[in-house]
Amino acid sequence: MSKDSRLDSLLTRFAQRDRLALARLITLVENRAPAAVAVMDKLYSLSGRAHVIGITGPPGAGKSTLINLIIRKLRSADQLVAVLAIDPSSPFSGGAVLGDRVRMTDHYRDTGVYIRSISTRGSRGGLSRAAREIVRLLDAFGHGTIIIETVGVGQTELDVMDLADTVVVVTVPEGGDSVQVMKAGLNEIADLFVVNKADRDGADRLKAELELSVHLRDGSGWRAPVMLVQANADRGVEELLAEIARHREYQAAHRDPDRVRDRRAHEFIEVLTSELDERARRGISNGGAPGLLDAVREGEVNPYSAARRIMDDRTALDKILALRQESR
Amino acid sequence: MSKDSRLDSLLTRFAQRDRLALARLITLVENRAPAAVAVMDKLYSLSGRAHVIGITGPPGAGKSTLINLIIRKLRSADQLVAVLAIDPSSPFSGGAVLGDRVRMTDHYRDTGVYIRSISTRGSRGGLSRAAREIVRLLDAFGHGTIIIETVGVGQTELDVMDLADTVVVVTVPEGGDSVQVMKAGLNEIADLFVVNKADRDGADRLKAELELSVHLRDGSGWRAPVMLVQANADRGVEELLAEIARHREYQAAHRDPDRVRDRRAHEFIEVLTSELDERARRGISNGGAPGLLDAVREGEVNPYSAARRIMDDRTALDKILALRQESR
Repeated sequence: MSKDSRLDSLLTRFAQRDRLALARLITLVENRAPAAVAVMDKLYSLSGRAHVIGITGPPGAGKSTLINLIIRKLRSADQLVAVLAIDPSSPFSGGAVLGDRVRMTDHYRDTGVYIRSISTRGSRGGLSRAAREIVRLLDAFGHGTIIIETVGVGQTELDVMDLADTVVVVTVPEGGDSVQVMKAGLNEIADLFVVNKADRDGADRLKAELELSVHLRDGSGWRAPVMLVQANADRGVEELLAEIARHREYQAAHRDPDRVRDRRAHEFIEVLTSELDERARRGISNGGAPGLLDAVREGEVNPYSAARRIMDDRTALDKILALRQESR
Repeated sequence: MSKDSRLDSLLTRFAQRDRLALARLITLVENRAPAAVAVMDKLYSLSGRAHVIGITGPPGAGKSTLINLIIRKLRSADQLVAVLAIDPSSPFSGGAVLGDRVRMTDHYRDTGVYIRSISTRGSRGGLSRAAREIVRLLDAFGHGTIIIETVGVGQTELDVMDLADTVVVVTVPEGGDSVQVMKAGLNEIADLFVVNKADRDGADRLKAELELSVHLRDGSGWRAPVMLVQANADRGVEELLAEIARHREYQAAHRDPDRVRDRRAHEFIEVLTSELDERARRGISNGGAPGLLDAVREGEVNPYSAARRIMDDRTALDKILALRQESR
């Protein structure tokens, strides 16, 4: 089979809700394969229907237990649910991330639940692009709800949360947690706060602190509610889902058209620059600038001078970027 | 003055060791100004002489106190010393980063010490590029030692440590610190370990654990020593500096030519892709694709389709990338 017809067959199977085809397309997008942009272009019109819920918070806050419960409740409503877990590159944040993932395999045999994790390690700034495209694929596939789980530790994770329609920040009543939430900038992005393990001492105080921080934020618009939850005892989760649904409705009624436009423009620029980046890497690796690359390797031409030469030589750049030739 | 002559005057003052000119050029590089690549090209041949020491470890390990001492000792040897501090984007890691910085201003009035910090927040994957270029500038300026300080929390910080000739990982004898070091991948990059606050309980055990981890690493080549240090009492720091010097000599004697070549090639590709990225962003923002950008903003053309159109239209791409026209 030719590459094109293999891709067409993948897309056909994707349209028939073949999970293997979904997995393959995700891998293709994650690896920035040459066909990735064309795939996204073809499937784009199918996306934009899912509700994307971001769930973040410090390690050990019980995010995975909560997500397990949310999945179970949404599945009983017979929705397709997907989870995209962003594995932290930052193990100083601690926490048994892998163990958490394993627990989510409660749902492993349920073909209505799709779980995928991607790692921030080695993503070199491309993670939020990859995450956005994977969310679009999950969405186009027909998942009604897509949960993005991150450990709220870094800028990458904050960027990823920007993909969510509704951001839930999960905290626990433990030393200085509300301070950490503030410092991490999570209070600015939260649409809802969860105080998990609410049976513990300090839950009410944490709730009050978070409510104060919400109060101190700008006064108009959506006010992030602070929910007391005990995920491991299934307490407060129904109420949380109701608030999530309420936030979705609120958003639909208060959509800011400028923000929607800016997001589209942003996505366009990200796709374009990432395509240029990927093509340049591929072009150089595939011998697109053989003499020059060798001269750089041997220290005869410095890397900056070499880059300038390519930028000043349209023929060389066309070759590296594998640009289609103009018919003149 | 024209832009070119302003730049020439900056470069002249830089050559005369004018710290303000250095600061201006760093800002220019950090902001990815159009002239940045040309500046780096011009100054490249002056770089490659400094010893770059990376100092990393968890928050609260006493890195800044240690760095203060190192600066004092190196300054008494009348060397120019620079510190590039990478401010974490990750406040969950805690720690009074700002306070630490303030303490470093012990050296603020010493014109032989140059301190600059850059933030990982908002750097969108460009931080290690910026850090590399700033290190080159500090190097070209004539700093004999350049210290890069990071909080060892994420991939970005690990990437930055790759710029160092000698990586010092600072730990303290506190709950599970050696485990955290392992998890963060810091044991793989350490050329030297420091057990700081070595008067505390558990210092010897931590030292033994770290030595075991060094032992378990591949057997040949440099073996990272584990140094007991009390930075706040100036104990063990002379010995640390001696080991750092020994590592530098070891490296000079065991330089891997393939690794040197690969680094140059890597830098070339990074410069080229970042230049393409920056030019594309600038080109689009400056109205390089007006009709198309509007169509994307209005949702009439999807972002992927728009990116493909640009990639397939050499004239449009040339315009966006502000490429010099070929003379035919």
